[in-house]
Parts: sequence; C-alpha cells; structure tokens
Amino acid sequence: MMGAPRDDQACRNLRWSVALLDGLVAGGMRHLVLSPGSRSTPVVLAGQRQPALQLTPILDERSAAFFALGLARATRQPVGLLCTSGSAPAHWFPAVIEAAEWGLPLILLTADRPPELRAWGANQTVDQIHLFGRFVREFHDPGPPRDEARAMKTMTALGARAASVSRGRRAGPVHINLPFPEPLVPDTDCDPPASGDLRPLPHARPGAPAPTDDPWSVAPAAIDFHQLSGPGLICCGPGEYTDDDIAALWSCATNLGLPVLVDPLSGLRFGPAPEVRVTRYDSFLRNPLAAAALRPAWVVRLGRPPVSRVLNEWLTGVPSLLVDPAERWCDPTHDAVQQITATPAVFLGWLQRTDRVTAAPGWLDDWLAADQRLTALAEQHLAESPWCEPHLIQTLIARLPAGDALFCANSLPIRQLDTWSGARARALAIHGNRGVSGIDGQVSTLAGLTRGGLATWGLLGDLAFCHDLSGLLLAHTLDRPCLVLNNGGGRIFDYLPQRHVPGVETLWRTPLSLDLGELVRPFGVPHRIVTDGATLDRALDQVIDRGGARVIEIRIDATSSQRVHEGFWQRVARQDII
Amino acid sequence: MMGAPRDDQACRNLRWSVALLDGLVAGGMRHLVLSPGSRSTPVVLAGQRQPALQLTPILDERSAAFFALGLARATRQPVGLLCTSGSAPAHWFPAVIEAAEWGLPLILLTADRPPELRAWGANQTVDQIHLFGRFVREFHDPGPPRDEARAMKTMTALGARAASVSRGRRAGPVHINLPFPEPLVPDTDCDPPASGDLRPLPHARPGAPAPTDDPWSVAPAAIDFHQLSGPGLICCGPGEYTDDDIAALWSCATNLGLPVLVDPLSGLRFGPAPEVRVTRYDSFLRNPLAAAALRPAWVVRLGRPPVSRVLNEWLTGVPSLLVDPAERWCDPTHDAVQQITATPAVFLGWLQRTDRVTAAPGWLDDWLAADQRLTALAEQHLAESPWCEPHLIQTLIARLPAGDALFCANSLPIRQLDTWSGARARALAIHGNRGVSGIDGQVSTLAGLTRGGLATWGLLGDLAFCHDLSGLLLAHTLDRPCLVLNNGGGRIFDYLPQRHVPGVETLWRTPLSLDLGELVRPFGVPHRIVTDGATLDRALDQVIDRGGARVIEIRIDATSSQRVHEGFWQRVARQDII
Repeated sequence: MMGAPRDDQACRNLRWSVALLDGLVAGGMRHLVLSPGSRSTPVVLAGQRQPALQLTPILDERSAAFFALGLARATRQPVGLLCTSGSAPAHWFPAVIEAAEWGLPLILLTADRPPELRAWGANQTVDQIHLFGRFVREFHDPGPPRDEARAMKTMTALGARAASVSRGRRAGPVHINLPFPEPLVPDTDCDPPASGDLRPLPHARPGAPAPTDDPWSVAPAAIDFHQLSGPGLICCGPGEYTDDDIAALWSCATNLGLPVLVDPLSGLRFGPAPEVRVTRYDSFLRNPLAAAALRPAWVVRLGRPPVSRVLNEWLTGVPSLLVDPAERWCDPTHDAVQQITATPAVFLGWLQRTDRVTAAPGWLDDWLAADQRLTALAEQHLAESPWCEPHLIQTLIARLPAGDALFCANSLPIRQLDTWSGARARALAIHGNRGVSGIDGQVSTLAGLTRGGLATWGLLGDLAFCHDLSGLLLAHTLDRPCLVLNNGGGRIFDYLPQRHVPGVETLWRTPLSLDLGELVRPFGVPHRIVTDGATLDRALDQVIDRGGARVIEIRIDATSSQRVHEGFWQRVARQDII
Repeated sequence: MMGAPRDDQACRNLRWSVALLDGLVAGGMRHLVLSPGSRSTPVVLAGQRQPALQLTPILDERSAAFFALGLARATRQPVGLLCTSGSAPAHWFPAVIEAAEWGLPLILLTADRPPELRAWGANQTVDQIHLFGRFVREFHDPGPPRDEARAMKTMTALGARAASVSRGRRAGPVHINLPFPEPLVPDTDCDPPASGDLRPLPHARPGAPAPTDDPWSVAPAAIDFHQLSGPGLICCGPGEYTDDDIAALWSCATNLGLPVLVDPLSGLRFGPAPEVRVTRYDSFLRNPLAAAALRPAWVVRLGRPPVSRVLNEWLTGVPSLLVDPAERWCDPTHDAVQQITATPAVFLGWLQRTDRVTAAPGWLDDWLAADQRLTALAEQHLAESPWCEPHLIQTLIARLPAGDALFCANSLPIRQLDTWSGARARALAIHGNRGVSGIDGQVSTLAGLTRGGLATWGLLGDLAFCHDLSGLLLAHTLDRPCLVLNNGGGRIFDYLPQRHVPGVETLWRTPLSLDLGELVRPFGVPHRIVTDGATLDRALDQVIDRGGARVIEIRIDATSSQRVHEGFWQRVARQDII
C-alpha cells in the first residue's frame, strides 16, 4: 500500500493511536466506549494495550453515545467514543448536542479513510471534517499516521489537550478525526514509539484546573447596584453545583434574607439546607395574589433556565443577573442586565460581603410560608385523590436511600417531579438530560450513569423508554429499577392546546401497543407492574437496599391523573397562600 | 406574545405551512413522515388539510428517516420528514448521509423556536442553521411566518423548488428550517391565504425534468480516443438505471462486443439481457491466469464503485471513463481519465454510433465462457458442501417471484449475494443502502420500501437487524419476510485480519445473546427458524405469493460457512477458467 512495507503502516497506525490514548489517559480519560468496526481497529488495538482504560463495546453508536454521556455525567471525567467511518459517527449526533448544551466531556474519536479516498466515492467514506459543526468545542484532523518523533509527540499532546478542553471552562465534546490507511492489523510485533516523546504537555496533566476551582474573581465595580435594590431572589436552575457553590449559596441567602428557588435538576432540593429553600413555586405562583405579592425587584440566576414554565413566565420582565462561568447567556426572556463570568461560589461570596444589598423585612418569611402552605395543601389534595404520579413521586422522595440517584426523563416526568417532589434533608442526586430536553437515549444514559458508579433509578415515560429500544441491550447492567410511567403515549399533549385537535391520538400522543413485559423479556430484565400505592410499596420493599436491574411498569390512568393535577391547580388558585 | 393577538400568530403559522406544503405537493411530494412533537404542530395541521399527502407518524426520528429513505428509494419521489426542535433532527443524520451519498430525495422539515430564542438557553433549542452541513443540497431558513402576500408566495415557491432540487441532477436531501413563534394551535378557524399567491413557480411543476430524461449531450470531441483502443469493459456499479440506460447498455455492448460486469445493486443481474452480462467476476478473478488474461485496456464505469473488492482491486490501474450525470467522481482508485457528465443512455448511445471503437475478436466470448464455467463450478461446489448462505441465495434467486424485490444489508450479506447470485432472466429488483454502506436503519428502510409499493424481502445479518431495534415497531407493516442470517455477530471479521486478534469476539464480532423469536414477539410479527434447505423450502412454500410480515431466522454455522467459501476460492484458483 502506497509503496510502504505492509507492517510499517499497520504499526504506524498502532503507535499513533497509542500516543493519542496516552495523552487522553493523562488528561483523565478512563473509559472508551466503542462500536464494532474495521477502520477503527488501530485505536481498539491501542486501547487493549492501555491498562488505565476500560473498553466497553456497544453495538448501536447512538446508544453508545448516550451511555458515554451518562458516564461523563456520573464521573465528570472525559469519556471516549470510538466508531468506524461513514454514517456511524452520525448516530452520535443527538448525544453530542446534549453534551454540548449541558457541557459534558465527550472525546469523539472517528476512524476515517485516508484523505486520498475522501470525495472519490470510496466505500463507507463521507466528509467527516467538522462533522458535528458548531456542537464541538474543538475539531482536529491530524492526518494519516506518521513516525516522526515530532508528529508522535503532537498526538500525545493532542490527546491531553482534548481531555483538558472537554472539561474546561466551556466543557463539552471534542472531535478528533483519525484517517488510517490500510493495513489495519500488524502482522508482527510493532516497535514501541520512543517513550521520551510521549509525555503530555504539562498544562494538560490530570489535576489541571477544572472550572469549579478556578479563581476567577468579579470586580464589584462591574455591577450596576441600582439593579439590586428592593427584594431579590436567587433562582438555581438545572446545572452542576460544587460544594463551594452550595456553601456560598446557603450562606449568602441566609445573610441577605433571599429566598432560593431550586429546580429539581439543580440537585439542591434534597440534602441539608437552611431555611431559605423554596421548591413549591410551580404550584403557588399559579395563585394570582401570591404571584403578585411575591414578585421580586431582581433575581440572581444560576444554571440553565428552570424546568417550570410557570416560574419562567412569572420571572419575565424581572431584571436578572446571570452568573455563569461558561458564559452561555441562558436568558431566553432577555431580562439579564448583566452576565457575570464567575462561579456561583465567587459571585455569591462577593455579594454577601458587599454592603450594597440589604434584606427586605418579612420577604423571606412570606416565601417560606407559601412553600409550607403548599406542602400541606399538596398532602391534603393527594390524600383525597386517586393514586397517580404525584403519589409515586411522594413515595420515591420519602423512600429512596440517601446514596442513590434518580434519572428523570423530560416531558411529563420532570414536570411532575418539579411540581410534587418538595424537599428533603437527606441527599438524593437528581440527573436529567436537560441540555436540549430530548426524548432520546434515556435508557442508555441511565446505564452510563450506573456504570459511572451512581446507583441510579430511572423515571421515564413509556414513549421515552421505547424511543431508546437499543438501550435495552444495556438494561441488564442497571443496578436500580427503571420505573416506566405507562400512561398511553405522550400525555404532555393532554396539557397543551393540541389536545383539542382531531387526530391528537395518532399524530401527537402516538401510543404504542406494546406489552412492556414482553418487550423487556429477551433482554433478561425482570419486569413487574405497579398500579397503586400498595403494589408500589411491595415492589419497593423488594428492591430498596438490594439493587439489581429491573423494569417496574407504573400503569397510570391518564384521564384520572389529569383530573388530579387540574383539580390541584384550581384549588391553589382559590386558596389563600400568603 | 410579541404584542400580536393570539390567534393571528397561530393562523399565520398554519397558513405559512399550508403554503409550503402546497409547493412540496406540486413538486411531487406525497408522503410526510413525522415524529411526534409540539413545535412542529403547524406543519402537521397543514398536512391534515392537504388531501394529496399521506401522514405517517413514527416515534423514533432515526427510524422515521430510514423509513423515508426507503420510501424515496421505492417511489423516486420526494419524501418529507418532519420533527420538533432540539436533538430530534439529529437522529435523521445517518439517513441524511446515506441519502446524500446515494442521491435520494428527502425533504427535511425541522421545526424551530423563533430566532429570538436561539442561543439564549431556551428549552429544546439548538443552532439548527446548517445542521446537516454539506450533506444537504440546499438549506433554507425562511424566518418566522409572515402574512405578506410576497412572503407567502415565497413559501410555495420554496416548497416546489426544494422538491425539484431534491430529485434534480444532483438528487439528495434538502433542509428547510421552520421557526414558529407560539401559539401553535389556532383557537378559531383561520382565514385561508389569498389563493392566487400560492401557485408554485412554473419551473418546479410536477413533471419538470428529472435527471433521467435530460437531454444532456456529450461532445465526441471531448473524449480522448487513445483511451478506447484495445479490449474494453463496461462496469455497472450500484445505482439506478432507467429503461433508456438499460436499452442503450445492452445495445452498445452487443454491437461493440463489450462484456458488461453488473453489480448486484445495479439491478441489472435479474431480467432479460443479451449475451454480454457477466456476474461471476468476484469468483473467477481470484484465478490468477484468468485475472491476467481478461485484463482490459479500458473500462467505462457507470454508477458507484462495485461491491466486489476483488473487482475493484483488479481494475486498479485500468484507465476508466466515469459516466455520471451527477458528477460525483466515484473513482477511489484514481484511474479515471475523464468524467463525462451524461446519462448512460446518452453516452452509450454515442459510443455505439462512433466508429472509433471496434470489437476485439474472442474477447467477449472469453468473458462469457469464464462466467459460465464459474456458474457450473459453483453449482458443483455447493452440491458437495453443507447448507449455508450460498444455498440460501441460490434458492432465493430461483424462487422469488418476478414482481418482488430484495433489500440486502451491507457487510457479509451483500458480498455473499454478489458472489453467489448469478443472473436470471426474470426480473427481481435489488436494493441496498450502499451510499455509505452503514449497518444502520435496515428494518426501517425495508418498511419504507414496502410502504412505497415494492413487495420487498429483507436479507439482513443478525447485528444489522438488532442495530435498528426501533425499526421493529414497523415490522408488522412489511409485506414479505425479513430473512435474518443469524451467524453469531459480525462474521465479516472472520474474513479480515482482525480474526487473529485476541478479543476479536468481544471487540469486533460482538455477538448478542438475544433470542430473535422472543425479540420480535412483542411487535406482533410471526417468527420461524430455518436451518437447512428443507426447512427453507417449507418456509418459502408457506409465504411465496401470499405476502405478509414475518421474520425468518436463518441459523448459520459460521465456521462451516467460512470453510465452504474459502474452499470454493481455493478451487477457483486451481481450476482452468479460460
């Protein structure tokens, strides 16, 4: 091939891949999730020689990518993906988009044909240059493998750099396209590369600064203090908060008398907190008097926009300070008077120290009173209502062990969790793919979270579960139940204007006539059905503290559930909240 | 919303969508394949009002896209895809790439949030501008709906233009991104648009020139005749050939004494043909004497590069004329002395009329003799060998009715079909996703072909079948059996150098421990197992001429099959072929 002896090119491919993986491992990568293929062989061979790396083969690239996403979410370390050339990497695209929007470190390694075959109709060859467009933080194509010491050193540096960028200030996916000429498998043992050339660059060693411990500081002069007069709020949207962030949050809020509205995907609802935490806003802001009385003069926003549409609409028009070290401009209502490039810990520490913000008397108390009244009202309403999702959520929040995690799907489940979870003092990690809130890849992500060491429960609707059927190939690796809310299709449309359109059943709700028990049987996962509180309790008795993969199908009467929800909101609207 | 009365925007969205669909329908689109979602509602509402359009809801966007691909392949008409915003359209990407490389008319309609929400962290909102990069022929974002007559007229023109481009000379996908502000569902009846404004542009009316009937002519002066001296060949690679192309092909080859090597995916192996057709080249070119004796001085190449690796390597270095109206430069070995922008019909018609090419005595006879000898040798070898894929292929070619079609997956199945099919005089349409030869979307594509009116059998490996699990949701719509070659994973690696690598089983072959019968049961498709010629015949007796969806699992002993294949090639290498 190309005039070179056969073994030379195969060995060159292998050494090149070894050098790259050395850099990635030095940068903290410990997992390589690969889908079978031929062109990617040199990287697999290199992976087999790298003891620090776990290789996980997953047939469907789409499932592999969501698995890697869950793994990155759980471990906060770069996770590698590898596949062959052609349409294979295109299956990663949905998970790449989610990782880009949420900010998760994926290392996308695409095998490619060498440049002389691109654009000439060669088999399984497409233009993979910039394949993922603007959804990756960096793209590299180092060209076909070469043996020069400098080129080899570049590969190790590139690996270390990719790992570093992927978990840097603007964390997200990095794509490295790897063209390999044939042959791909060496006939003989290959010489190792000169080892002195393979040291990663110092700046990318493991332990390099992550965004969370960066000392970015905010200059008080940059803040417009006119915006911070009158009563204020802190709104914690979906995101990842460090221990430092959380300590600064509770301290600042307590000292300045600021209510803290915590989204379920902030992870701040569950765990110890001082008397500043508010979780029932999605309900009580439906009460017109409460909504008017509690309106703030300003809000500090952390993380992405909250799940609650009620909250988002109610906050529209309130001047807000966006605090985001990654400078993502999460402000769909365009109310930010400023975006501040700082971690919550740094900004809130500064806010607390400044004397320009003072607590408004009674303000925090009004919020806490509303929250408590709603907790009581929810209890009472559910006690009088037929069993459905809210009761399930109550039970889960009451019973899930402190070390466990819950992965919640988008659409109805996350909204219902938002409405009904309340708070608790024991920890419970909550995760969700809320970067772009897709229906996709839920079972695979759950398996990735589990593989990343989090004992994670799933809470999915029936459509989300069936959107990721190839994720079922990973279901036996779960360590906690996956709860599937089977309510007959996309029931979110029962709450949207589409519900009155003829054809809503076939064109929007799209229920599937599948027996979930039959569906999961070939994948070796036990299945059981829950229909009410008693069967749920029995199911939980069996599994809590024990672990293991299983699918618990929660049969929900969607009409009755809708009545419970709309009845509650009517009740809230009528009741005195503050 | 935005100061406009509520109904105005919903009606504007609807009228905008009606105008667009009117143009697409005028351009020949008859199917809209949609995945459920909220933001795409205006287009669904418009689709419900368009009697010429069939709406097919499919949950998983990836499966929907491959279904649309199959439908476009079967009908040769533009097929629409519709989904909501966010990661949803990213699931189309693999099928979009296949459609781009093969040249199939997909109309990609992505709903989007309005521009004021993009890049501000709004839910389910990503940068959808140029989402598919260079894999679409055109991209348009007409902006949020407006009511001005000129803007509405543009939408109809845009629909007609998109349909026209998608099946034009460089047929392929066209992407139209559609931002819709809320509300999405009108509360009241909407005024229709002024009907005079909705007429599509004349150039894009149905019946506009398709590439197949274009009168592009080729100037003889442009051909370098030195290249056409000595014995020549015509090589018909994968592609779609019109009746005119085929008539010109057989006529030209007969008159000039040119052997015609026909790839299985050319569709030219099955059906009447004069004595110029050669199908066994993948076998007899493994015989060194035959390979040397039959080497041509030049080759005319039509379609994409052939499936046979033996043929491709053997043709390397032979000066070739690429004939391709779409100017795709399908020439991975870089042996083209010229690419000619003409249909095969036009070019071959001209070649036949010119007096510059003369038949070489005995040349065609040598080829036909080799082909016949190989047919006899294959018969003999298979009669002496244990039953496996070649026998299955023999039986299928002998028994499939003339009106039926066969959809063959990549990797081993298409190579085995290539080696063993031979030719037959009765028609049999063959299809395969060979644009990028992915493992993906096979069941969904099969369902799309079926929906497009072709009574199509599937021939898939076990991994390809399981890569497209959500395609099983469409399996009950099949009208012919899907044959699954269950040989324990990716057995193509048994024929590649990876077979000697430790870990080949878990990292390359990746067999799944799934019971296919259990797997398909929840999807309501009958399943049966075939293990030899007798059980195959009984299974075919039951289904031929009867139709209906079913999965026939063909259990193959991969080791024995490999022995049959390698034994055959050794036999061929030793035998006198010419």
